[in-house]
Amino acid sequence: MENNKIRIVVAGPRGKMGSETIHMISETPHFELAAAVDNKNDGMSVRDLEGLPDIDAPIYTDIEACFSNIKADVLIDLTHPDAGKAHFQAAVDYGVRPVIGTSGFTNDDVARFEQKLSDKNLGGIIAPNFAIGAVLVMKFSQMASKYFPDVEIIELHHDQKRDAPSGTAVKTAEMIQKVRESKKQGHPDEKETIKGARGAETDGMHIHSVRLPGLVAHQEVLFGGEGEMLTLRHDSFNRKSFMTGVRFAVETVMSLDTLVYGLENILD
Amino acid sequence: MENNKIRIVVAGPRGKMGSETIHMISETPHFELAAAVDNKNDGMSVRDLEGLPDIDAPIYTDIEACFSNIKADVLIDLTHPDAGKAHFQAAVDYGVRPVIGTSGFTNDDVARFEQKLSDKNLGGIIAPNFAIGAVLVMKFSQMASKYFPDVEIIELHHDQKRDAPSGTAVKTAEMIQKVRESKKQGHPDEKETIKGARGAETDGMHIHSVRLPGLVAHQEVLFGGEGEMLTLRHDSFNRKSFMTGVRFAVETVMSLDTLVYGLENILD
Amino acid sequence: MENNKIRIVVAGPRGKMGSETIHMISETPHFELAAAVDNKNDGMSVRDLEGLPDIDAPIYTDIEACFSNIKADVLIDLTHPDAGKAHFQAAVDYGVRPVIGTSGFTNDDVARFEQKLSDKNLGGIIAPNFAIGAVLVMKFSQMASKYFPDVEIIELHHDQKRDAPSGTAVKTAEMIQKVRESKKQGHPDEKETIKGARGAETDGMHIHSVRLPGLVAHQEVLFGGEGEMLTLRHDSFNRKSFMTGVRFAVETVMSLDTLVYGLENILD
Amino acid sequence: MENNKIRIVVAGPRGKMGSETIHMISETPHFELAAAVDNKNDGMSVRDLEGLPDIDAPIYTDIEACFSNIKADVLIDLTHPDAGKAHFQAAVDYGVRPVIGTSGFTNDDVARFEQKLSDKNLGGIIAPNFAIGAVLVMKFSQMASKYFPDVEIIELHHDQKRDAPSGTAVKTAEMIQKVRESKKQGHPDEKETIKGARGAETDGMHIHSVRLPGLVAHQEVLFGGEGEMLTLRHDSFNRKSFMTGVRFAVETVMSLDTLVYGLENILD
Repeated sequence: MENNKIRIVVAGPRGKMGSETIHMISETPHFELAAAVDNKNDGMSVRDLEGLPDIDAPIYTDIEACFSNIKADVLIDLTHPDAGKAHFQAAVDYGVRPVIGTSGFTNDDVARFEQKLSDKNLGGIIAPNFAIGAVLVMKFSQMASKYFPDVEIIELHHDQKRDAPSGTAVKTAEMIQKVRESKKQGHPDEKETIKGARGAETDGMHIHSVRLPGLVAHQEVLFGGEGEMLTLRHDSFNRKSFMTGVRFAVETVMSLDTLVYGLENILD
Repeated sequence: MENNKIRIVVAGPRGKMGSETIHMISETPHFELAAAVDNKNDGMSVRDLEGLPDIDAPIYTDIEACFSNIKADVLIDLTHPDAGKAHFQAAVDYGVRPVIGTSGFTNDDVARFEQKLSDKNLGGIIAPNFAIGAVLVMKFSQMASKYFPDVEIIELHHDQKRDAPSGTAVKTAEMIQKVRESKKQGHPDEKETIKGARGAETDGMHIHSVRLPGLVAHQEVLFGGEGEMLTLRHDSFNRKSFMTGVRFAVETVMSLDTLVYGLENILD
Repeated sequence: MENNKIRIVVAGPRGKMGSETIHMISETPHFELAAAVDNKNDGMSVRDLEGLPDIDAPIYTDIEACFSNIKADVLIDLTHPDAGKAHFQAAVDYGVRPVIGTSGFTNDDVARFEQKLSDKNLGGIIAPNFAIGAVLVMKFSQMASKYFPDVEIIELHHDQKRDAPSGTAVKTAEMIQKVRESKKQGHPDEKETIKGARGAETDGMHIHSVRLPGLVAHQEVLFGGEGEMLTLRHDSFNRKSFMTGVRFAVETVMSLDTLVYGLENILD
Repeated sequence: MENNKIRIVVAGPRGKMGSETIHMISETPHFELAAAVDNKNDGMSVRDLEGLPDIDAPIYTDIEACFSNIKADVLIDLTHPDAGKAHFQAAVDYGVRPVIGTSGFTNDDVARFEQKLSDKNLGGIIAPNFAIGAVLVMKFSQMASKYFPDVEIIELHHDQKRDAPSGTAVKTAEMIQKVRESKKQGHPDEKETIKGARGAETDGMHIHSVRLPGLVAHQEVLFGGEGEMLTLRHDSFNRKSFMTGVRFAVETVMSLDTLVYGLENILD
């Protein structure tokens, strides 16, 4: 029955993530695409856009107009931080649950949006990383560091990536830092005979960034203990790897009545 | 101050695990070896046994005599199932917290011992596997299977191991089975052109056993999802890998007031 | 100068491999697409076909007509075995060096084509696998097995693959078999408590086939020796991984004067 | 028949490698321990030394006296560079084939010893690394870099190791450097947001050094190409991993008539 489907508005339908999300919605029986919010193509239909599935859902350039005309349960925003914040506000105003996939929210932003959602008993999710596998590696790493305080992180990406280390690696280290005591790892007198060999240090942990053509996005967290090693690894082979997380966020946001920041907080 | 140390009796001091445990105790500042229970060498001292550290702790062949004469907080038993059960009972009788490292306890045994401990408000731990890293891999695998129901297990051991798959691999599959819906994995029409290629099947999961000279004990649990792979791996390089778990069990049992079966239930 | 470019005819331009090959040619400065051989679209231009780059090269349905009208150095055939054999013959007749990427050639076929090429002092390559990385793993495995006769193969593919083990795994085992003495691996009394745990056995080696959604094509060859393990692994993330091998084959065939079967025989 | 055995003198019988070597000799049917050269214990027997097998072979402190009294085919030297050079000379003088496992030989030393051996048509081997698996990884890395010029090295050791990167990693990079054109890898504008993230750079390659308790000695060489990754890995779990190489060197030196420097030059 149609009425049991979760009705979704996607903002950013022509971006890579947005396009993938619309395909995912069309393949998920209990999801339904209600509309799309784009910065052009007003009045057209999703099926008119190149590369998108044959769904007759209207496109709006004005999100308020969209929510005035369309009944929706969830907004998935995959645009950019500025638009994301504006869309978040509009969704809350219209009682639509926001699932926001952009980063760039400050602590103040998060606190403010949390208040707005609580005032309305409305659920919402902000997730800088939708790859459930990557988020599980972070979460398990935090848990494991309680027993194995010695940890190093290797992240591997294609060689078109400019920044090192990756945001995910830094986030992983921060999550570990919250639960383990600060610790300077390695031999106290260790010496680099070639500068940089021991990688980037943060709170005593070491992060190593590999960049090679052909790779996609991979991370390995290594824990060493007396006579043993624990390795947690995530390989992202393509953008579809984010869809499991987007789908899970949509399903979960329906039963939330407040804001959750970070997918790790809804995985158990 | 001596009084703050946890006083420990070790049963099976000449076995590989027992000997390693006594070395671990001697290197742990807040642990103290109170005595050893052996099936010979009554009246001798631990320091007289070959390969053990220079600790002057008495050896008893009779565990009741041991507990009558020696004040102890914890019994670590690393003998065999039959002795383990008798030692468990004696420990409970004397108010000593048992940490038992043998397998072979039936569900009935566990229920009975649980009752005995509860009656005395005494903590106890039975742990078939003390390798914390291996236990974390099991625990994380169970958690991950909720999001990634498609899983295969590869376990790798030295070629002197006779049984395949390993007990740890089977236990891992059982733990996953408890939380995921039964699922036949792979292509419905998959075909082995050489028998056995797809490994051992249990509840739709596949387990692969590698045996090679030089290896020790390794396990890898692989989860596949749309566009991504999650890998959880444990490498045990030598027997010392069990000591982190034995130490943790001794510390934890001091604050328990009932029986815990399986290290995974005291890791959080 | 145009004259220094290698002029290439591609048979099968609309297939996945063929399309990828034409893109590769357009991005390789010293390669030039001379024409395409297709089973339809006669008289059209490559630029008219959907998804192909903007190259004005003629399409022929008749390969003889193609070679009569077009000066070419190399034919790349990515069709199917039957067409591949006919195209091979036509190329030889016209003095065009064939690079054939289909499998299904019998030993007799290979011997016959070898003779034809030798008679004309013409180079040619038949390569069932163009992934250089995968071929290097096979070649290195053969070399390593001389020092490490104990070997197991793990191949991992997406769960839409029906056959197990993979052709590459079987080929790897065959190449090892050529150089190592036959050997029954594992403990002489090893026992499977769940059938299939020890994988597929071939000449004493064991092959394990993992099938999971999300995976692409991966192979790991493990060698165990006293106190050590050697691991050779190849990950194929997408079809582009074959282009390095196609490019290399085209460059190499220009200096051959006979047939080479298998990329491993031109890698050194 | 005794006469077919290779008669070996071991210098440094009480060191870890020397002791392991004597055990290996005692377990190898076609090897025979003729004598040991030690810096003490003159006139005693190998069987008198703690931890060594029950072999009645004489111990000499003077290597000349040893070779005057004992008929030997091969000298295995596992002492230190200075002693190694003196022992090398003595072996050559007495027509005994030297297998030297110490590093610290300069290019001049090597040239001089090469001359001495050639003058006598005598074989000799100097091997800074006896782990065949590690040497194969170096050799295969050199071969692979011809097809995959983008390479990064990850070496992982226990946290008691002071220097980073490891000698093996540096040697691997040097061997690759010999065959590939110099190449600056990664994005031209890449930026470390935490210093050291991209590791140690040498000739455009990047080396990453992981140090964790519990690890032994591991190295992974990663090659990236369009859509694929090739990984060559060696794990050394304990010192026995060197014995395969020592045994192989002894067998090989018997058929050499000149000096070979580096095990990679006798592996094919």
